[in-house]
Amino acid sequence: MTLGTPLRRLRSEDLRTAAELRRSATSQGVTPDDRFDQWWAQRSAAGSFAVDRVAFHELRGWHEHPATGDLRHDSGKFFQIGGLAVETDHGPVGRWAQPIITQPEIGVLGILAKKIGGVLHCLMQAKMEPGNVNLVQLSPTVQATRSNYTRVHRGSPIRYLEHFTGARRGRVLVDSIQSEQGSWFYRKRNRNIVVETEEDVPAHEDFLWLTVGQVVELLRRDDLVNMDARTVLSCMPIAATGEGALHTTGEVLSWLTEIRSRYTMTATAIPLREVPVWRRGADEIYREDRKYFSIQAVSVRADTREVPGWTQPLLVPHHQGVAAFLARRIEGRPHVLVQARMEPGYVNGAELAPTVQCMPANYADSRYRPRYLDEVLAAGPDRVLFDTVLSEEGGRFFHARNRYLVVEVPDDFPLAEPEDYRWLTVDQLTELVRHSHYVNVQARTLLACLHSLW
Amino acid sequence: MTLGTPLRRLRSEDLRTAAELRRSATSQGVTPDDRFDQWWAQRSAAGSFAVDRVAFHELRGWHEHPATGDLRHDSGKFFQIGGLAVETDHGPVGRWAQPIITQPEIGVLGILAKKIGGVLHCLMQAKMEPGNVNLVQLSPTVQATRSNYTRVHRGSPIRYLEHFTGARRGRVLVDSIQSEQGSWFYRKRNRNIVVETEEDVPAHEDFLWLTVGQVVELLRRDDLVNMDARTVLSCMPIAATGEGALHTTGEVLSWLTEIRSRYTMTATAIPLREVPVWRRGADEIYREDRKYFSIQAVSVRADTREVPGWTQPLLVPHHQGVAAFLARRIEGRPHVLVQARMEPGYVNGAELAPTVQCMPANYADSRYRPRYLDEVLAAGPDRVLFDTVLSEEGGRFFHARNRYLVVEVPDDFPLAEPEDYRWLTVDQLTELVRHSHYVNVQARTLLACLHSLW
Repeated sequence: MTLGTPLRRLRSEDLRTAAELRRSATSQGVTPDDRFDQWWAQRSAAGSFAVDRVAFHELRGWHEHPATGDLRHDSGKFFQIGGLAVETDHGPVGRWAQPIITQPEIGVLGILAKKIGGVLHCLMQAKMEPGNVNLVQLSPTVQATRSNYTRVHRGSPIRYLEHFTGARRGRVLVDSIQSEQGSWFYRKRNRNIVVETEEDVPAHEDFLWLTVGQVVELLRRDDLVNMDARTVLSCMPIAATGEGALHTTGEVLSWLTEIRSRYTMTATAIPLREVPVWRRGADEIYREDRKYFSIQAVSVRADTREVPGWTQPLLVPHHQGVAAFLARRIEGRPHVLVQARMEPGYVNGAELAPTVQCMPANYADSRYRPRYLDEVLAAGPDRVLFDTVLSEEGGRFFHARNRYLVVEVPDDFPLAEPEDYRWLTVDQLTELVRHSHYVNVQARTLLACLHSLW
Repeated sequence: MTLGTPLRRLRSEDLRTAAELRRSATSQGVTPDDRFDQWWAQRSAAGSFAVDRVAFHELRGWHEHPATGDLRHDSGKFFQIGGLAVETDHGPVGRWAQPIITQPEIGVLGILAKKIGGVLHCLMQAKMEPGNVNLVQLSPTVQATRSNYTRVHRGSPIRYLEHFTGARRGRVLVDSIQSEQGSWFYRKRNRNIVVETEEDVPAHEDFLWLTVGQVVELLRRDDLVNMDARTVLSCMPIAATGEGALHTTGEVLSWLTEIRSRYTMTATAIPLREVPVWRRGADEIYREDRKYFSIQAVSVRADTREVPGWTQPLLVPHHQGVAAFLARRIEGRPHVLVQARMEPGYVNGAELAPTVQCMPANYADSRYRPRYLDEVLAAGPDRVLFDTVLSEEGGRFFHARNRYLVVEVPDDFPLAEPEDYRWLTVDQLTELVRHSHYVNVQARTLLACLHSLW
């Protein structure tokens, strides 16, 4: 054991990481950009994939629980779909019930990093998921549920997993547990981890070494970088430290504590078949008014995955969402307007979310049109700093897409903040994402995108 | 709105707070020590209190749920006692069930601070709770469940509450949500908050202005400073920053993330009457072998509280516990050996706990004697830096006491750490306690005590 790494050295260590990551975000890597495009075209064409919708009774290895109607895997592992009754004193709707995906295990989302030619590279994967738009998307080195990596499905082992579990084989740059969609998942959490190795690690044909800058640049292509890669990227300590912020971090934490204490949201598991207003057909569980989403089932054939074929339920959103930050400079420093948002699946109360996060179609004729949505949608092209449609988790959701935007506000936009909103710097978000349950998954995607702006 | 508090200024702000708190920890305050003793004797004698054990059927305003046997308040508020089934792959016992107190509301534990004669003082309260040893203990300015402060009991309003809720009336020094006993409470959390006021605030006769140093010194008296005061004190940013630590904070967070990811502990609510091995008598719910604790009921009369009398259930531990840090200097800096501990009531997986935390009587004849317990109990008086018996939450537990110890290890004590243990500096614990769910309530009491040592 080596002694005495002083905190001062920790800080310069952190700064070294930030500087390396920034350099990696601007340097030419070992993989030229056109080589990426070539590889991507090959990988997208290489696999033989098929995803077909099936009726619930055609699910193999899954059953409907006789008492509750919940959809469960026969092993009791992976995930299940049950019902959730929600009550809250926050927001316009005080009480509802819905189907929800429950997945209590903490999975691993890991990116293996390595300095090549003096520049930090990430080992990225071309990975197929049944719910992905285009099926194959750019994914972390490892993306595995606990059931996956303990091989409940008895498939082949997961490549590169050994760098992330058990005895540490490299320097850990990022390691935190983060929430995912709290409206669709009940208490889902994943470990986001980046390990820098010094070993010689050959890239399997489904994998490619890219710099952080290359991955961040690829975020501007629709439906290319998957959600799991985005959340790990967002945790990388790229931002410089010590920059001016409108509010101290202590003030931000106190504001969030106030909201977490003042409002309650209780979420109680109920049998899926007792969820009111939802109906079960032969191949779909849906709301009578067809709003929000439905639950469907698919059969998957994929010769590049750990098992060659399987069936599973998927959550199918009925509309595209919008997730947007309003952004501005305050005394020269870039700030974004963050919303404290409560979702029933969150472990620890409100989390920091984009300024706007909604499915606009749900509010077309509503009194409850989300605040700032019109500012986002009406912004002229000169104010739109980022605008890309990206897919959410393709292993659980089918074609779940959000339009991610960063919109600069005019100089005369009011600085005054409504109760649930605060202006934060990108650095403050980066500082908070070291810890669990502060920054929600949509805000983390935007945080990764912000790295391509400033 | 004022603009641009740069992070640099934030840091010097933090340092100013730390310096003020340290000064307050060493300065003479406006209340001489002997005046405290006088006041304390008066307050302890002043009230007319009676706590009598009653049978469950004598509880007023409480009922036994007909289907589950759970003990509930008729309002559905305050707290309830139900059953919990636990399964885990961590530790020697893989599965058990037990009664548990469920209290989903986030209460307020608030200390009002004010600079008097240039020195920061805390407004401390002499407060009676039915489960307290000596009944009256030194408590925060405000200690209130949400049901309390929204006045479900229709009692008198809570003094000084206005400083902690609604629009902020002072500078916030501390504001974080923290867990409590995860073996006895299911997901219990309280907001720990310190507000520095500049208003002229007269002290009601049950309240006294004391410096941080005076309160910390009073921690050395058995059963005087209550748990709620200790946890708020522990969150005060007293420690100096930037001092040498064996592990960087990033390494500590990664170690905790690893444990939180590797092990699972699922806790499922079950009906109280279906908890195996536990029995219900007329005035006691207890384990057949009389181990651990029982649930009893009391009738309380107290002319100093918001309501003059009430009945309630209490959890009665059968033995005194031990909570101890092993401590040593590493390269000159004080470190304590912290344990990552899983308890079924925790919201977010393992938390940092004392080196030893147990009831020794439960292990008298056991193969599973807790690690380091013998080192703690056998230490000679020259190695015992702190040794006081303190009470836990007297509003929910009856005479729940722990012997809190800080024990210095010999120079030849191995630095090597078992998987679940790490040496941390006091500064690192102080940094972590800004956030939720890192440092458990027993470790927070010891953290407050450590301020009296170094």
